[in-house]
Parts: sequence; structure tokens; C-alpha cells
Amino acid sequence: MRVAFFARCVKSGVESVSYKMCVVGLGLMGASLAGALRGFREARITGADVLEDVCRKAERAGIVDEAVTDASTAVRDADLVIFCVYAHHIPPMLERCVGAFREGAVLSDICGVKSALYARLADLLSPHVDYVGIHPMAGKERGGFDNADPAVFKNSGLLICPLPSTRPESVELMRKLATHIGAGCVAVTPPVEHDAIIAYTSDLTHIASAGLCLSPHPDTGPAFTAGAFRDCTRVADINADAWTELLMDNRAHTLTRLETYIEDLGKIRNALATRDQAALHALLKRAGENKREMLKRWTR
Amino acid sequence: MRVAFFARCVKSGVESVSYKMCVVGLGLMGASLAGALRGFREARITGADVLEDVCRKAERAGIVDEAVTDASTAVRDADLVIFCVYAHHIPPMLERCVGAFREGAVLSDICGVKSALYARLADLLSPHVDYVGIHPMAGKERGGFDNADPAVFKNSGLLICPLPSTRPESVELMRKLATHIGAGCVAVTPPVEHDAIIAYTSDLTHIASAGLCLSPHPDTGPAFTAGAFRDCTRVADINADAWTELLMDNRAHTLTRLETYIEDLGKIRNALATRDQAALHALLKRAGENKREMLKRWTR
Repeated sequence: MRVAFFARCVKSGVESVSYKMCVVGLGLMGASLAGALRGFREARITGADVLEDVCRKAERAGIVDEAVTDASTAVRDADLVIFCVYAHHIPPMLERCVGAFREGAVLSDICGVKSALYARLADLLSPHVDYVGIHPMAGKERGGFDNADPAVFKNSGLLICPLPSTRPESVELMRKLATHIGAGCVAVTPPVEHDAIIAYTSDLTHIASAGLCLSPHPDTGPAFTAGAFRDCTRVADINADAWTELLMDNRAHTLTRLETYIEDLGKIRNALATRDQAALHALLKRAGENKREMLKRWTR
Repeated sequence: MRVAFFARCVKSGVESVSYKMCVVGLGLMGASLAGALRGFREARITGADVLEDVCRKAERAGIVDEAVTDASTAVRDADLVIFCVYAHHIPPMLERCVGAFREGAVLSDICGVKSALYARLADLLSPHVDYVGIHPMAGKERGGFDNADPAVFKNSGLLICPLPSTRPESVELMRKLATHIGAGCVAVTPPVEHDAIIAYTSDLTHIASAGLCLSPHPDTGPAFTAGAFRDCTRVADINADAWTELLMDNRAHTLTRLETYIEDLGKIRNALATRDQAALHALLKRAGENKREMLKRWTR
């Protein structure tokens, strides 16, 4: 946990507050989010994590008012519950917690792929709760509670993915939450569109970066690496568990993107192989133009 | 030119100095290098650039004592001449300047590929001069004099690529120059080895980054992009002229690297296509292990 953060954590009142939030899973993202949520609606925040010592650490760090190992206890009476666990843990967890949700509770998750998850949740959601997933476009190479940092959301993107049934008030709540945690840019996007774009900006990018490290030149010393190599391989030290799940869950979209990427690289390969300088130049030029076009959109 | 830099430029005495350097080409790299070289051996520095206004700007910025458009005038009496121009400009420039080099002058270049260049220089070098190329592992996405910054070399890598005939004193001179401009890590490497490793750390990396921008998802908005995408596509807005030349000059090595990369990406593709989670996990895990292994080497 970042030291700079401790100072913000003490203020939230405890017993008298009326709004209650629960963060299930206090790893890198859950703990960062709990910390960033401090002060939001002056809420009391409970946490849940399977690791007893993470619960204690979270309490000591002041990012939650109380943390317990049993999620169904933690979610009791919460107005807002955010699942910050691997996607495949959410359905069984939801089943276990379903009797403990208060009437009208808003449920959310922070998973990076939505369609596959939402399909699995369809039969588990009761009309007494409202569901709206979010996807904070933030993170770090290294996971776990000890790497958590509430500032990780500052100026980052945040995607809100409602179900067709999601109430507009719940989308609005997520917009306010996004503002509170410092997100710089928010978009509301249907799950399928979300997954298709994310397959490009996130899944393909991580595959491209990891791919660069599958067959490194054995003599790659520090004098041979410049900023380009360091930047392009920054996320190559990937969490294999998390990313295997993410890529499998977004399999169809990611396959399409990856195949297009391999095809595009093949064009560069062919231009090089046939010494076709004009074709090579045109490809590089187009990449630059597309990149500048995107940059313009980012800064608009 | 970075403002912070102007202050350093005034000190070097002018007429009385005995060591003389010449930087040919005052674009991003040449101007940055000239600025960073200020004070080295208390040398007088001349510059050459085909653009008259760049010559004037370089004089006004104080990075050179004098700049002219004719390289053969600029190199006269220089103890050290560094060519900071595209590789294909170097042989004709050398031919034009050959009569102007002083006896014992050290010639150098900063090109990113060495074997192809050195082959073209073989018949042009007289025994009266000594040649030793360098490759500063530094740069920026945007070129030109106006983007120059002598601080670009700070803590970056610098590769020294001697010819078999290069005198040890000239290699030593380049080491001292590297220290002066603030390079953090220096390696002496034969041209072929240099080109093979650079094909991985630089050529392939730039291709991978550019490739990511050849077929962007049309709805890629700012909320969908996180640090990974921004980092991995940072150098995608590539100088198509410079990189067409660099990639063609290092064609064989780059092809090998690019084909290996496409093959590795194909393995990830196959694991996804066949829903082989174990294979996918193993590939991601290996990428992470290789990356950590490299990081260890970088920080050693």
C-alpha cells in the first residue's frame, strides 16, 4: 500500500453512516478501489477476502471499516457491492450471497470481459438487486494487496457496462463513483461492444507485449535496450492466471484481433522479404497516420 | 530545443581551443549530440546541415560554434567527425569530404545498423583516418532540430561498433564521449552482433508497435485505452523514411526476428483457437519469466 494514501483513510465516520458499500476481494484492484472509494457518500465500507491476513491488513491500512473472510457476511445490508475477484469466482459467490443482499442493492464487478460473465450471471440475478459492471482501465504489472494504490485510477479510463435491465440510476451511481476515484474519462458501453474494443486495446496489446518476450535474443544486454523496448515489453511480465481467464473469456474477439495483427505483421514481413521498399514505407506511414488519428481522439 | 539546455552552451571558449569536433547533420540526433558534447575536451564544435536556417538556429542555440551548409568545409581540421545523417547519405558525403579530413581524424556515425553501412564504406576509408561507429540507444518519436534535446542520452545505452581496423584509442575516445553525454550503459560490439541484437530490441519492437496501429478498432476511444496500449503504441508514429532505410539495411536479421515473432504469436493464436488453456497459460508464464530474466540483467 502506498504511504501517501494512509492519510486519506481515517476520516470516514463509522456507525452513524447510512450508505454501505462492500468490496469483495482485496487484491491489487479491490484494495485500490476500496481505498479510492473512501469518502464516497460518506459510506461505511466492508471488505471480504479469503485471506485472513489480508483482511487484517486492509483494516489496519484504513481502506475498509471491517473485513471478513466470508463474503456473504460482508455483503449483508450493503447498498453497493463490487466484486473484485476473478470472473469465474463471481457466479458461485453470487449464489452463496444471494440471500444476504438487501432489497435494491446495486451489484457490480470490475472484470475485464463482460459478455461471458453476464451470460453466466443471467440465471443468478434476482429482481431485488440491480447489476451494472464496470471496467477500470487501470492496473499494475504486479498484483496483490501489497501493491494496491488508490491513485491507480487517477486520470484513467473507466467503462460502465449495463445489462439491458440495469436501472439508469445505477449507471448514474457508477458515473459518480468514477468521478470520486479520479477516473479521467468515462464511457457507457454495451458488453459486446466493450469486449470487441477491449480485445484490441487490452487483450491484443498484452499478447503483443508477451509475444515479444517469448524468444528474446540471448545477448540482450542493458546497453541494447532503449525506451521503445522497455515500453513495449512493460506488461510482458503478465499474470498468467488472470490473463488466461481474460483471454479465454474474450476468445472470439481476441482471436479476430490477433489474426488481423498476425496478418498485418505478415504484410511487413512480405515487404521486407521481397525488398519492396515502397510497400514497407506505405505500411509504416499508415501506422503513423492511424496512431496520430487515435492520439487526436484521446486528447479531444 | 529544450530551454533548460541553453544555459550550458555558452562556456566553451572559441579560438584558443586545440581539439576540434564536427557534427554533420543537425536533425534530432545530431543537434542533441552536438549540445550534449559541449565541454567535451573543451572542443570547438562545427556543424553542418543542408538547411541554412537550421545552421543559424544551431549557432543561436549555442550548440555549435559555427555551422555551414557544406560538410566538406565543416569537417576541415576536425579531430573528430560524427555523421548524424541517414546511412545512405554517408558514403557520398565521405567521398566529398575525403580530401578535407585532417591526418589522423577519427570518423564516426550514429546509424542504427552497422554491417550494411560498413560494407559500403570499405573502399572509401583512407588509412589516414580511423573509423568507429556508435549507436546511441536514444531518440524520440518526432525528429528534426526543433525536437532536439541534449538530455536525451542521459542514462541511455550507447553501443560502440569498431571495425577490425579501428584503433583502440578511438574506442577509448568513444567511451569517454559516452560518459560525457551521460550514457548510462556502454557496450563494445562487433557490427554483426550489434545488428543481430538490435533486430530484436529495436527493429522488431518498432514493427510490433507499428503493427498494432495498422488495423485499429474504429471505436477506440480514450476511455478504452490504458497504460499498456499507450506504452505499446508509443513508437508507432514512426518516421517512415528513416525506418524503411533501417529495416532494409538490417533486413536479414529483422526478417528472422519478425518470423520468430509471428510464429510465437501463432502459438498463442492456436492455444486460443483450440481452447487449450494449459498451452496458453504456459506461453504467458514463459513470457513473464523471460521478461523478469531480462529485467534482472538490466538492473545488474
